[in-house]
Amino acid sequence: MTDIDAPAAPPLAAIILAAGKGTRMKSDLHKVLHPVAGRPMLLHLMATLDRLAPSRVAVVVGSGRDQIEHALDGSGAAIAVQAEQLGTGHAVAQAQAVLGDHDGDVLILYGDVPLVNAATMQAMVARLHGPDRPVAVVLGFRPVDPTGYGRIVADAEGTIGKMVEHKDATDAERAVTLCNSGLMAVRAADLWPLLARVDNLNAAGEYYLPDIVVLARADGRGSAVVEAAAWEVAGINSRAELAAVEAGWQARRRAAAMADGASLVAPDTVWFSHDTVIGRDVLIEPNVVFGPGVTVEDGATIHAFSHLAGARVAAGAAIGPYARLRPGAAIGRNARVGNFVEVKKAVLGDGAKVNHLSYIGDAAIGAGANIGAGTITCNYDGFGKYRTEIGAGAFVGSNSALVAPVAIGAGAIVGAGSVITRDVPADALAVARGEQRERPGWAARFRHMMLARKAGR
Amino acid sequence: MTDIDAPAAPPLAAIILAAGKGTRMKSDLHKVLHPVAGRPMLLHLMATLDRLAPSRVAVVVGSGRDQIEHALDGSGAAIAVQAEQLGTGHAVAQAQAVLGDHDGDVLILYGDVPLVNAATMQAMVARLHGPDRPVAVVLGFRPVDPTGYGRIVADAEGTIGKMVEHKDATDAERAVTLCNSGLMAVRAADLWPLLARVDNLNAAGEYYLPDIVVLARADGRGSAVVEAAAWEVAGINSRAELAAVEAGWQARRRAAAMADGASLVAPDTVWFSHDTVIGRDVLIEPNVVFGPGVTVEDGATIHAFSHLAGARVAAGAAIGPYARLRPGAAIGRNARVGNFVEVKKAVLGDGAKVNHLSYIGDAAIGAGANIGAGTITCNYDGFGKYRTEIGAGAFVGSNSALVAPVAIGAGAIVGAGSVITRDVPADALAVARGEQRERPGWAARFRHMMLARKAGR
Amino acid sequence: MTDIDAPAAPPLAAIILAAGKGTRMKSDLHKVLHPVAGRPMLLHLMATLDRLAPSRVAVVVGSGRDQIEHALDGSGAAIAVQAEQLGTGHAVAQAQAVLGDHDGDVLILYGDVPLVNAATMQAMVARLHGPDRPVAVVLGFRPVDPTGYGRIVADAEGTIGKMVEHKDATDAERAVTLCNSGLMAVRAADLWPLLARVDNLNAAGEYYLPDIVVLARADGRGSAVVEAAAWEVAGINSRAELAAVEAGWQARRRAAAMADGASLVAPDTVWFSHDTVIGRDVLIEPNVVFGPGVTVEDGATIHAFSHLAGARVAAGAAIGPYARLRPGAAIGRNARVGNFVEVKKAVLGDGAKVNHLSYIGDAAIGAGANIGAGTITCNYDGFGKYRTEIGAGAFVGSNSALVAPVAIGAGAIVGAGSVITRDVPADALAVARGEQRERPGWAARFRHMMLARKAGR
Repeated sequence: MTDIDAPAAPPLAAIILAAGKGTRMKSDLHKVLHPVAGRPMLLHLMATLDRLAPSRVAVVVGSGRDQIEHALDGSGAAIAVQAEQLGTGHAVAQAQAVLGDHDGDVLILYGDVPLVNAATMQAMVARLHGPDRPVAVVLGFRPVDPTGYGRIVADAEGTIGKMVEHKDATDAERAVTLCNSGLMAVRAADLWPLLARVDNLNAAGEYYLPDIVVLARADGRGSAVVEAAAWEVAGINSRAELAAVEAGWQARRRAAAMADGASLVAPDTVWFSHDTVIGRDVLIEPNVVFGPGVTVEDGATIHAFSHLAGARVAAGAAIGPYARLRPGAAIGRNARVGNFVEVKKAVLGDGAKVNHLSYIGDAAIGAGANIGAGTITCNYDGFGKYRTEIGAGAFVGSNSALVAPVAIGAGAIVGAGSVITRDVPADALAVARGEQRERPGWAARFRHMMLARKAGR
Repeated sequence: MTDIDAPAAPPLAAIILAAGKGTRMKSDLHKVLHPVAGRPMLLHLMATLDRLAPSRVAVVVGSGRDQIEHALDGSGAAIAVQAEQLGTGHAVAQAQAVLGDHDGDVLILYGDVPLVNAATMQAMVARLHGPDRPVAVVLGFRPVDPTGYGRIVADAEGTIGKMVEHKDATDAERAVTLCNSGLMAVRAADLWPLLARVDNLNAAGEYYLPDIVVLARADGRGSAVVEAAAWEVAGINSRAELAAVEAGWQARRRAAAMADGASLVAPDTVWFSHDTVIGRDVLIEPNVVFGPGVTVEDGATIHAFSHLAGARVAAGAAIGPYARLRPGAAIGRNARVGNFVEVKKAVLGDGAKVNHLSYIGDAAIGAGANIGAGTITCNYDGFGKYRTEIGAGAFVGSNSALVAPVAIGAGAIVGAGSVITRDVPADALAVARGEQRERPGWAARFRHMMLARKAGR
Repeated sequence: MTDIDAPAAPPLAAIILAAGKGTRMKSDLHKVLHPVAGRPMLLHLMATLDRLAPSRVAVVVGSGRDQIEHALDGSGAAIAVQAEQLGTGHAVAQAQAVLGDHDGDVLILYGDVPLVNAATMQAMVARLHGPDRPVAVVLGFRPVDPTGYGRIVADAEGTIGKMVEHKDATDAERAVTLCNSGLMAVRAADLWPLLARVDNLNAAGEYYLPDIVVLARADGRGSAVVEAAAWEVAGINSRAELAAVEAGWQARRRAAAMADGASLVAPDTVWFSHDTVIGRDVLIEPNVVFGPGVTVEDGATIHAFSHLAGARVAAGAAIGPYARLRPGAAIGRNARVGNFVEVKKAVLGDGAKVNHLSYIGDAAIGAGANIGAGTITCNYDGFGKYRTEIGAGAFVGSNSALVAPVAIGAGAIVGAGSVITRDVPADALAVARGEQRERPGWAARFRHMMLARKAGR
């Protein structure tokens, strides 16, 4: 047997069912757009599918089509509409026109089951092309408590003997722990003819997708099961389930960060996003929130109560406590962003320090520069945003306002409490503040007057 | 049978026992005044009783009477003193004089059992008037581990067969999971005569309230049990139990918020108060503390690390991260309070923005106004508080100090770094800052000198 | 029998094994230097040993010797090097030269088992001198799941019948729940000769320390076991185990704080350090981090989101929310440090207030002084740190910059928005700010121009 015998993988299409009403979410936002780990559920599936490079993706929606289309903008996925909620079989059937002449495999996913692994999806498709050529591959899982789930009776090779609803199961069948998640892989050539034969002669009057397994079996053709971890197929129908799936995701992500060599003092209080990158020997203190788009390099420290999004923290830098890095913040090696400091669209050079109570926005701060407590870059005039450039080694005294556009030259010093409106040359001192005047005894007289007034009341 | 036959509900009185020493709390504050969900335990009971409209409430105290009286000020409750700790029967007896000629039902509660539901209290009273006319209605519950609790043997109608202490119980009785919480409802006409017959011939030499059930039974009169959830009757005797009751309350409140359509990214890190109101499609990020008196309307977002008390957040507004709203803060629709911002007794108009590092106190900010980073309303002169009024559409440049009383007119602009001490007319520009001066080369000379000095050491 | 018969306690030496590679930590920092409760593991053991006053301590290291020596600097402990990892027996043998002629007891500890109690160590040594004079005292514990641990079969007096590895154990032996932690106490006079007889004829080719128990038994001499709580002997081999040990430590510390009379609203969100001191009736709100060196006196309140290190908070003071106290902060009785305030090396007198958005560093603030919002002590010029002195009862207006070295006299008032560069006499008023100027209509014209510009694009 040579490589030449191995057939090319058939093209893959995916159908994502997202037509459920999501009533229990009590939300104006479509259920599948609620985020897990900082990314809408539906986009988790789209990102995972990306790794399988499907030729077509159809998303079946009911209400909320506009929101879904907006979220999928640029993804290449097509929308199919299921106007009436007539069951999963009916929902899949609505995607047929969109998939058109697709003549390969079809993966059927659920928009509210967002965390299925790419490897699991690949295993489903691979199993479809196993030696026994099953008609359908069902994704099974073993919940902690299988009560209520449909059971899958299968042999060691995953060949399905029977699928049975909980209510119809015998005691022996109820003892089976392998349950049906509803996800499925089927060849298009089998899917559409089988689906056309599914009827709705049941209590709910719905067309059930799993019936295709029964119909195929009646034709003498078998199906198979592939098994996933229970958390992969956890569905989300309420905010509580959303929070539970989020909690599970965070727990796995924290464990992975620690296994990779980061220290989390209180792992339960660190929240990652789907794309957070954390280096080795990074120390993360309690209560840190990572929004999307953050990279923290080796040996950096994120102190307690910090909030980062869209930011890069270079090796050895220290952030917080109480630091907020917003999108576009790039903190240089061994640089320092301290408490009550906000950094947005700003580059801090290596070793630069912004230690206290500052707002640094639309700025570039040179290596080794020191920005005093209470410094504000005044980057906005109500209409546009303007840049502040601070040279290497500059020293900006505390409580200064830097009115952008403005440049502070390298090595320059700005006196404390200054409002800088003109560029400061390198190595110069700039001061912009009022003269100090005193009135001896004034405070004593003021107190006397105020106390007298109070007494008079 | 017509409505005319239904007897009017007899008047209700309540006795709250709060004479325990609370030694394990190790506190100068009376045990029943320690807060759960931001409200003293005793006031939880008072608030719940309010819904039953009792004609009289007696609170039986031992030490710490002044603290209790102060807490009950204006509530209409009367204090009865139990000078010596001679048991629950004795404690209830001390309330007789206070209740005086009350001739209706009496509900006996415990100050350190603060979370009993109004519906449960109502069920106790209603059961007292059931067809079998029980002498007493005991509140039962089913703890996870009943070891140590007195058991209640009762039939399906709640008619009590026997009440028995754990130590005296047979194996069969110990298998009973229904336990006695100690709370009780009794008619006044039965309570006082029965109580007069209770003796203290037991190991502890105490007068036990439950003995009235035994005495009534000896008279051939039965009692009944009503069942509560275990958390309703959780008692608090230590700070650890206080924290546990708080944790349970918070868990139920979080679940309710989610069920009502709010998203809690990390539910375990959101702390509500007893009166927090949260709308639909409100997003609450990790680590948010709600003090008393907060309302958040639909679609608002509370970002991480925010702290709100006595504040109202209108629909679509966004708060935090790191925002602190103090009493009297009212944030308009789609307005924005950003990081390291404190707002106190201040109204922000619709769409107004205070995004960074500001203190806004005793102020009104018009719709659409933009308050720059580092702005401070200087509202206090050591004696009085003064107001700052900012008109709609005004723009206050960063790092400005607004010395109240002061008004910034609609559409006015305040230059960055200004100290505004006089009113600014509408549409005017106001600037109040020092002139900028530079000394070329000064910084280089300064560094040279300082380094030489260091080297000289 | 008289006291004169009681032998003087023999001198004690300790050997701490710290030669493991710690590969699973994935860290450049030596495993035993990773912190628990804010203190490196190894220093937990050193601090506990301090209470037993050992005459000598040997730390056996493999790689990372420099880090260990640096951490032990000044402790008096000596380093022994195990160049090759040939087993625990071999590791202990490397310490012989360092212990030299020590002729007393030897306690064998593990650098990555940091939380063994002093009382447990003392019990081990005391048991060594029990009437049956065991050769070795092994420290046993009862894990939740003993699978994989070596079992200790012992009688009620702790006399060991047999020690057996899990893999070699019979079913009856596996039913034993007492397991071997590896820690041991042995007389030096027994340890070295026995160790010399240990061989490495096993699958791993290693010299095992517990083999001395077997060898002694072959000589007809018994050993004994002393039991520790499982958490005392929890070992740390990964960041996840580090986090788990930290979590356990924190849980016990929180319970102790509550038992001692502090209220923790949300105990799981308060992080203590190894040396935190918390008084009675201290209230700690959710999300508070205590770094090393903090004392909080009776009746003080630490509001949510506060971060304290190296600080002292006197009775009745209130800190936070969002307050950061850094080393050298000493907050007087009933003083107040509010939101977004950082205090470093600064003393606040009784009743002083720094309520909002301030940086107070290298300063002394007199009793009753009021520091307005946004005040910054400008304590650094890029080279040295300078002090700010503020007298009792002084009032510093908001958004002021105090350029140190500078002194504000008692009772003086600083006008809001001032930059103070010269001393202010007592009871004087000082103002240092620019004059306010207005340009009527300028803002309207500016808006017109900017909007026109935008439209022009």
